[in-house]
Amino acid sequence: MFEQLGLIGCGLMGSSFALALKRAGLVKRVVGYSKSPSTTERARKMGVIDVEASSALLAVAGADIVLLAIPVSATEATFKAIRHLVGPHTLVMDVGSTKHDVVDAARRALLEHVGSFVPCHPITGKEVSGVEHADADLYAGRQVILTPIERTFTVQLQKAIEVWTALGCHVTQMSPQAHDAAYAAVSHLPHLIAFAMINGLNSQAHGRDYMALAGPGFRDFTRIAASDPQMWRDILLANREELLAQSKIFQQTLQSLEQLISSGSGDALESQIRQASQTRAKWRVS
Amino acid sequence: MFEQLGLIGCGLMGSSFALALKRAGLVKRVVGYSKSPSTTERARKMGVIDVEASSALLAVAGADIVLLAIPVSATEATFKAIRHLVGPHTLVMDVGSTKHDVVDAARRALLEHVGSFVPCHPITGKEVSGVEHADADLYAGRQVILTPIERTFTVQLQKAIEVWTALGCHVTQMSPQAHDAAYAAVSHLPHLIAFAMINGLNSQAHGRDYMALAGPGFRDFTRIAASDPQMWRDILLANREELLAQSKIFQQTLQSLEQLISSGSGDALESQIRQASQTRAKWRVS
Repeated sequence: MFEQLGLIGCGLMGSSFALALKRAGLVKRVVGYSKSPSTTERARKMGVIDVEASSALLAVAGADIVLLAIPVSATEATFKAIRHLVGPHTLVMDVGSTKHDVVDAARRALLEHVGSFVPCHPITGKEVSGVEHADADLYAGRQVILTPIERTFTVQLQKAIEVWTALGCHVTQMSPQAHDAAYAAVSHLPHLIAFAMINGLNSQAHGRDYMALAGPGFRDFTRIAASDPQMWRDILLANREELLAQSKIFQQTLQSLEQLISSGSGDALESQIRQASQTRAKWRVS
Repeated sequence: MFEQLGLIGCGLMGSSFALALKRAGLVKRVVGYSKSPSTTERARKMGVIDVEASSALLAVAGADIVLLAIPVSATEATFKAIRHLVGPHTLVMDVGSTKHDVVDAARRALLEHVGSFVPCHPITGKEVSGVEHADADLYAGRQVILTPIERTFTVQLQKAIEVWTALGCHVTQMSPQAHDAAYAAVSHLPHLIAFAMINGLNSQAHGRDYMALAGPGFRDFTRIAASDPQMWRDILLANREELLAQSKIFQQTLQSLEQLISSGSGDALESQIRQASQTRAKWRVS
């Protein structure tokens, strides 16, 4: 389907995409670039990429498909670095967890080539990062949200849908704004809470002892707290307005539960817990 | 090792204990009682118990080991109901997630027989409840916290250690107060937060749509929100002081992260996330 993938960012997400694309027979050659040359070299040695590029621009040279798999704050500078080699026939995608800021960066940096860019957010990941955790199955069966804008070329949008579908993903489209509102609620806020939970424990004299006693509930609840710091700094900052609005709703709900606990209102508390429990028991990951 | 287990409460925890004890060849006969006769009947039909008892007292008649596996708020009434058949040679244990309140209930209700009671908290569970999810492996490899008091009989404490050890558990001892402080931090607060997270979503016009977009991070983070409402109402109320103290620390930590986000303090935010990420990455469930 494609001749050459230009992979910018050989971390977990980018490397896994390259492996999946190769395994599906959808690309002949992968040229990769990472900020750290040792990462690029490791990606080549692992067979994730075929050729090491010494710059983002060189990774794009000759590519008919380009994937940015980098912290979202690096998006604009990367688009500026590659725009001279992005043509109307190049499909450019990203995997960023926020979309409003990425789309704004694309408009500013890609200029007349912005139509080649299809903003993507695959709903997958791991709490570990780096090329050494690359996994050809990372995307299989997952949702991918595309947030095209009015200037996105139909042909590239269609190609993006075909690529993700070929990797076994369920593709959904929405506006960047709707995307960011939803993921502030169901992803960015849970991460923020998980970070706060661990740091709140760290701040206590007995916090480490408490953690040594924790069980499988704590394990699952805090798994996302181990996520990549730079990536999550960017996400929390990029989507701060929606995130802080969600955090406010959460804290109000938490405080109303605390009120029921303080006043010993058992029936009302049980009814609130029942509502949460039933909602969660019915929910299934898509 | 034992002739007869008197099982009071044939839910997930009690039924799984009976199955594990039987499989290990540690008991000849299990007599079970549940508040709901249909549960007791199902437990017998499933082979979890051998004989149905029509009251807690009758479940204890002839038992040399008794397990209370009931919501913690029912502990005192149950102790009162069975105390005439609890002798110095009966080992009585519970599996409650709070210990200070359970120990107080035992002092008040068991009177001179309080020494036969060994308060236990196995650090295990599932987000589903009921005898139909009984699992002989539920306790294997898990921690069990014993919180004996000064009046606990040494012989019963030793027997309790032997039973749990025989089921493959790692046994730890601490005071009821130390137990409740630790589990407020690493179990009760995470549950409270998970309930608040789901109800906060429920309160929003687009909350259900947002949840439909959620991925594996949300799945794991909110798993415990599906827990049993009555059981968790009791736990949150029984340990309210420690829980509200932990919730306060958590909210202060959350708000200090929000402050860094609002002010765009990227370096400080990344450093805070890194602290959480490294702590959590090193942590392992015991």
